[in-house]
Amino acid sequence: MSGEATVAVLGGAGFLGSHLTEALLARGRAVRVFDRPSVDRRNLAGLRGDWHFLGGDLVNEEDLRRVVDGAGTVYHLVSTTIPATSNRNPVYDVESNLVSTLKLLELSRAAGVERVVFVSSGGTVYGPPETLPIPEDHPTRPQVSYGVVKLAIENYLGLYHRLHGLAATIVRLANPYGPRQDPAGAQGAAAVFLGRVARGEPIEIWGDGSVVRDYVYVADAVAGILAAAAGAPFGIYNIGSGRGVSLRELLEAIARVAGRRPEVRYSPGRPFDVPENVLDIARARADLDWEPEVGLEDGLARTWAWLAAGEGDA
Amino acid sequence: MSGEATVAVLGGAGFLGSHLTEALLARGRAVRVFDRPSVDRRNLAGLRGDWHFLGGDLVNEEDLRRVVDGAGTVYHLVSTTIPATSNRNPVYDVESNLVSTLKLLELSRAAGVERVVFVSSGGTVYGPPETLPIPEDHPTRPQVSYGVVKLAIENYLGLYHRLHGLAATIVRLANPYGPRQDPAGAQGAAAVFLGRVARGEPIEIWGDGSVVRDYVYVADAVAGILAAAAGAPFGIYNIGSGRGVSLRELLEAIARVAGRRPEVRYSPGRPFDVPENVLDIARARADLDWEPEVGLEDGLARTWAWLAAGEGDA
Repeated sequence: MSGEATVAVLGGAGFLGSHLTEALLARGRAVRVFDRPSVDRRNLAGLRGDWHFLGGDLVNEEDLRRVVDGAGTVYHLVSTTIPATSNRNPVYDVESNLVSTLKLLELSRAAGVERVVFVSSGGTVYGPPETLPIPEDHPTRPQVSYGVVKLAIENYLGLYHRLHGLAATIVRLANPYGPRQDPAGAQGAAAVFLGRVARGEPIEIWGDGSVVRDYVYVADAVAGILAAAAGAPFGIYNIGSGRGVSLRELLEAIARVAGRRPEVRYSPGRPFDVPENVLDIARARADLDWEPEVGLEDGLARTWAWLAAGEGDA
Repeated sequence: MSGEATVAVLGGAGFLGSHLTEALLARGRAVRVFDRPSVDRRNLAGLRGDWHFLGGDLVNEEDLRRVVDGAGTVYHLVSTTIPATSNRNPVYDVESNLVSTLKLLELSRAAGVERVVFVSSGGTVYGPPETLPIPEDHPTRPQVSYGVVKLAIENYLGLYHRLHGLAATIVRLANPYGPRQDPAGAQGAAAVFLGRVARGEPIEIWGDGSVVRDYVYVADAVAGILAAAAGAPFGIYNIGSGRGVSLRELLEAIARVAGRRPEVRYSPGRPFDVPENVLDIARARADLDWEPEVGLEDGLARTWAWLAAGEGDA
């Protein structure tokens, strides 16, 4: 029966959400795609299968009531903030993300939802790494409001699991990239850099290019999320590529994929950027029978092809 | 100059807050005692020195504006919830404690407050101990909303320190006990048990009496808070007795102090009670030149004397 229940994807029209929705549909699931009524729906254009769009807002409790009603699993991919700017207004971050998610959890419990899958942030919940790659039991010392809120939500998911038996899956995601990522967006170095190369514009980077991140191709990220969601009733999993890539290496790979050298401009480093963040994905490998399969150049090439096809144009 | 600035104590009319206020006054500080307008002010009755009462509510931003205005140091001892019941309404916990404290931090920064001292919870931020006693760098896996909120506030204090230079002192306090603790209250086993013995009533305990806690005498707790507040611009310190005491041992000590054996009734254990919680106070000892000085029986005897003098009567 639970195998037949509708699946809700909060943020389903977004970059990651639309890929997740597509993968769920490919598995024969009925998907309720929840996103803002005004959202650009081009990511949903090619979807085949049993899905419908439900417009609403995370901060509107009535909308949340509709999104969980009759849902078996709720995937929560929404954030009203991004790491780089979340410190500007922590009250807004807490009220719009944490409080809304608490209401979502309470409504989910009351509606009989079986599982909530929360996409957390492998890049911000740990803070400065004491070991690399970073395992799930690493200390959590978030340096930005975005990470403080993600961590608090994780803790409340644990609480709802213990108190109410709600299955809860927490995915601490590295930096996903791939087709449909906004090349003009505020997040996502890979797509933004590729977009600038495609338009013949210079690439601006913060710091000297030594900052190391963990870039995971979106199909691998989605496969990891789905594997985690099929796993234990409670679990926290790092999902990343397992490999650290510096901005300089990323730029080299982009140059090879695009067949041209981007012009690069360097700006001062940002204080909240930890020098290196790479996730240890051993737990997911061992427990979920999951493995990232798309290497960096392959993933960049697919993203480049999508951009070249003009589908990233506004 | 900072040595002369007014000190604000949020929750200053309470058990711990009134002792802290008294100690600050004894050091010659001017103290603004902030508490609810309707609060029972008997704890303030004997205070000598330069203090005044400011009535207000943590959830009222205008009240917070008045409390931080001109203050050099702000001691934040208020919680609208208690561990045992905080899970009943996490949204209320977050909105009243976390959001209000974020507003307090923002107002403190804007008003030029030098330091915020936050009394956090050594009993709930760590969750199930992996090592005993528990050092400050132990994993933080709170099992109750109260602890999730305290931890999020701690993280935001770190953020305000790094971003805005606000000095921030976090005291993860064990279970304080002593005179002025409400013997009819919902918290504080030592005072509640002593109160029941004094009234000839049976003592009810959850579980089999094996639960171990860290009871710190209030004067030691206050000395630790003040030492931490005079320390580094940012610090997290466990403040406790450094010694674990089971409920059974506590009852034995109470029997000796009171000169009579209490009648004990056992109820089923509560799922959120971790079996053992004892704080490692090595960091505070080393960095703050602080040491707990009042042993359990001595502290219980002082509390008993206060009760016997009738000052704990409603």
